[in-house]
Amino acid sequence: KIVSEVITALESLKSDYKIDYKVEIVGSYAKDTWLSGEADIDIFLLFSPDLPQESLGYYGLTIAKKAVENLGGRWFERYATHPYIEAEVEGLTVDIVPAYAVETPDKIISPVDRTPFHTRYVKSRIDEEMKSQIRLLKKFMKGIGVYGAEIKVQGFSGYLAELLIIYYGSFIEVIKNASKWKPRKVFIDLERFYSERERKKLLKIMPGAMVVIDPVDKARNAASALSIQKMCEFVAASKAFFKSPNVEFFFPPKPEIDQSRLENLLKSRETDILAIVTIVPKLAEDIIWGQIYKSLDGLETLFKKYNFKVLSKGAWLSKNNDLVMLYEFETAKLPITEKHLGPPVGSENENDFIFKYVNSPNTIAGPFIEGSRWIVFRKRKCTTASEVVKVYYEEARLGKHIYESFNMKMQILQNQDILKLTSIDGFKEFLHSWLVKKPFWLKK
Amino acid sequence: KIVSEVITALESLKSDYKIDYKVEIVGSYAKDTWLSGEADIDIFLLFSPDLPQESLGYYGLTIAKKAVENLGGRWFERYATHPYIEAEVEGLTVDIVPAYAVETPDKIISPVDRTPFHTRYVKSRIDEEMKSQIRLLKKFMKGIGVYGAEIKVQGFSGYLAELLIIYYGSFIEVIKNASKWKPRKVFIDLERFYSERERKKLLKIMPGAMVVIDPVDKARNAASALSIQKMCEFVAASKAFFKSPNVEFFFPPKPEIDQSRLENLLKSRETDILAIVTIVPKLAEDIIWGQIYKSLDGLETLFKKYNFKVLSKGAWLSKNNDLVMLYEFETAKLPITEKHLGPPVGSENENDFIFKYVNSPNTIAGPFIEGSRWIVFRKRKCTTASEVVKVYYEEARLGKHIYESFNMKMQILQNQDILKLTSIDGFKEFLHSWLVKKPFWLKK
Repeated sequence: KIVSEVITALESLKSDYKIDYKVEIVGSYAKDTWLSGEADIDIFLLFSPDLPQESLGYYGLTIAKKAVENLGGRWFERYATHPYIEAEVEGLTVDIVPAYAVETPDKIISPVDRTPFHTRYVKSRIDEEMKSQIRLLKKFMKGIGVYGAEIKVQGFSGYLAELLIIYYGSFIEVIKNASKWKPRKVFIDLERFYSERERKKLLKIMPGAMVVIDPVDKARNAASALSIQKMCEFVAASKAFFKSPNVEFFFPPKPEIDQSRLENLLKSRETDILAIVTIVPKLAEDIIWGQIYKSLDGLETLFKKYNFKVLSKGAWLSKNNDLVMLYEFETAKLPITEKHLGPPVGSENENDFIFKYVNSPNTIAGPFIEGSRWIVFRKRKCTTASEVVKVYYEEARLGKHIYESFNMKMQILQNQDILKLTSIDGFKEFLHSWLVKKPFWLKK
Repeated sequence: KIVSEVITALESLKSDYKIDYKVEIVGSYAKDTWLSGEADIDIFLLFSPDLPQESLGYYGLTIAKKAVENLGGRWFERYATHPYIEAEVEGLTVDIVPAYAVETPDKIISPVDRTPFHTRYVKSRIDEEMKSQIRLLKKFMKGIGVYGAEIKVQGFSGYLAELLIIYYGSFIEVIKNASKWKPRKVFIDLERFYSERERKKLLKIMPGAMVVIDPVDKARNAASALSIQKMCEFVAASKAFFKSPNVEFFFPPKPEIDQSRLENLLKSRETDILAIVTIVPKLAEDIIWGQIYKSLDGLETLFKKYNFKVLSKGAWLSKNNDLVMLYEFETAKLPITEKHLGPPVGSENENDFIFKYVNSPNTIAGPFIEGSRWIVFRKRKCTTASEVVKVYYEEARLGKHIYESFNMKMQILQNQDILKLTSIDGFKEFLHSWLVKKPFWLKK
């Protein structure tokens, strides 16, 4: 009822603003394929492609705000690839998105213009039974942690899940087939746009772990956001589910985690674990997670440069934007002595090398000859991983906002001290699963 | 005088044994190029090539022993490539070696048959001045530790030093030229047997760090026993000497080493040093050192297999055949956790991997998926380098006699405990130079 009120309110403003547009519900709400507790209601305002982009933003947002105000609701301006309005009307959240009403998907101006075509395509291809199969698949994907095309997850989008059900026919057929998928080998083309030969070529050149040709746009891979990691997790979980189906896949168990269990996990592995803690600014999820992943890799490279062996890494963001980056090392403490390879005997820079090290206070042993090369045992610049971060983080490739966050605040905790962070809501659960590493669905 | 007495005694036995042979003095004594304090007097008994090899040994040794007995001396049977007699006559040590008198070096039956040709060649090419230049070069090589073609040293033979003086003309010319040598690039052909094109080919195929065509046998590299290590040490020391000549090169300083200095050297580097101590049987030097070097490499490979990073290694043999093998590690203690890479997701042996680790007591975390692969954090087999040696030395490629020695006795000492070994005569000096690593001649 509220949705139709919003639609009516939006429609009624056409004459006030003397501009024509179509109001259309899109997304999982329109398709009746949403997961309970996550109804995203997306209403698109579709303007003529003749309207300049600046005007689209202006009219789109103004009309949306006005309609919400007329209904006594609240609105917030948001930004994904384009600006849109998140509205709260009588307790219901509705996204109102301005876009272009193009004739065919190959004429789209911005990626959001494609969404109505996706919605129409899926609606035209599914019946009631398939809707529940889609919900089942989405719930499965969510349970095992591969649902969501956003950068944080890099998993399966809702649309991709829908296409898989349309293609394979049912949840169990998706599972059965997916359990045999191999990364970079799967090519799905519902509308049979391509010949066998073209498929092979496209598999090689299209980015993504698998190729699912978008049925409304044959030049687009609907699975391009899927990482090999998430695809492989889905494959392995499908295989496990097919072998021994279990409701836990859909409703993952939530283990009780007490402090002493965490303490024990940290201690018994004998490795060194470092937590780098900062606070990042409020930004769009995709932007901040893009920067987090970039920084996670950048610091790993930095640690390797200073000879620390990284076994595992991970990042966690609290609701209040506390960022915790975790690294596990074989050891976070190295001896002061570092073996440094110099030039070959008889090479041009031999003299410089000898001159630099022969009586240097940084020389521990040598210079000496090993085989045909000069070698020196010298003092290491950094003997602990925590020093590497503190002193040299500016050398690392970091996301801009992460770099700025580090400049403002950087707290380094090691091993048992990391448990202090369990006061932040949700960290305990993240740390536990990051340490245990075994997916909950993996059984003997 | 004693030498001529020995020769006369040997000559006089020809009629007793009814066999003809020539008695010839060879080696540095014959050439007058020996280093003071190391006069090796080598007397060869040269038999006809018609004599079968068994008879050569029989007659050669019998005649040698008899002659020594006639002079009231003592003899010991020794074995290098062939058996020979080490004789002590009136306090003088003389080696008496049976060999074949062949017409030309290409007709030799055993390598020792070549020695008289080497002696004759050198004698025919040197004058008094060159003799002293040869002595100077040998003393220099000895001082910097590259003199001796035996397996322990893998350096320059006396004959090779003589050829270098003949080729370059003087000690300082050898030094000047050698300071520009590069390994596997030097080709010296005194008798100009080969054309430019042939030289290039031979450089590629002849083994050794450099090629010095034997002037009495053009198919032989007189430098084949020289290692790249020792060649490079000679090159670098030559360069240093040429830049700033110093008597220390010929008479190396012997540093006073006290226990506290060694203690400090061991401690301040923060690495872990392991000493593996055993007792090896009395064998020919070349045989035991061949086995020591093989074993040194074999154990290094073993350490690497168990993920211990070796920075340096070395071996020392006492006069009483105590063998000490030293290894320096970044760390000799690793955490119990080891990251183990499993098969790709979807591969054939995926199930075996999961089955093996999913509920194993050896699993610390996982199995989990990283990219497209299964990974497990599992318990390490060995967490200390000393455990690796003690438990798994049988897995290593070891010299036969070293392996047997380990079976009889193996003592492992680590860090400061190694200082207990300084009670063995000469070990302190070895340990000191092995830790310091800088050649004494290396100055700023």
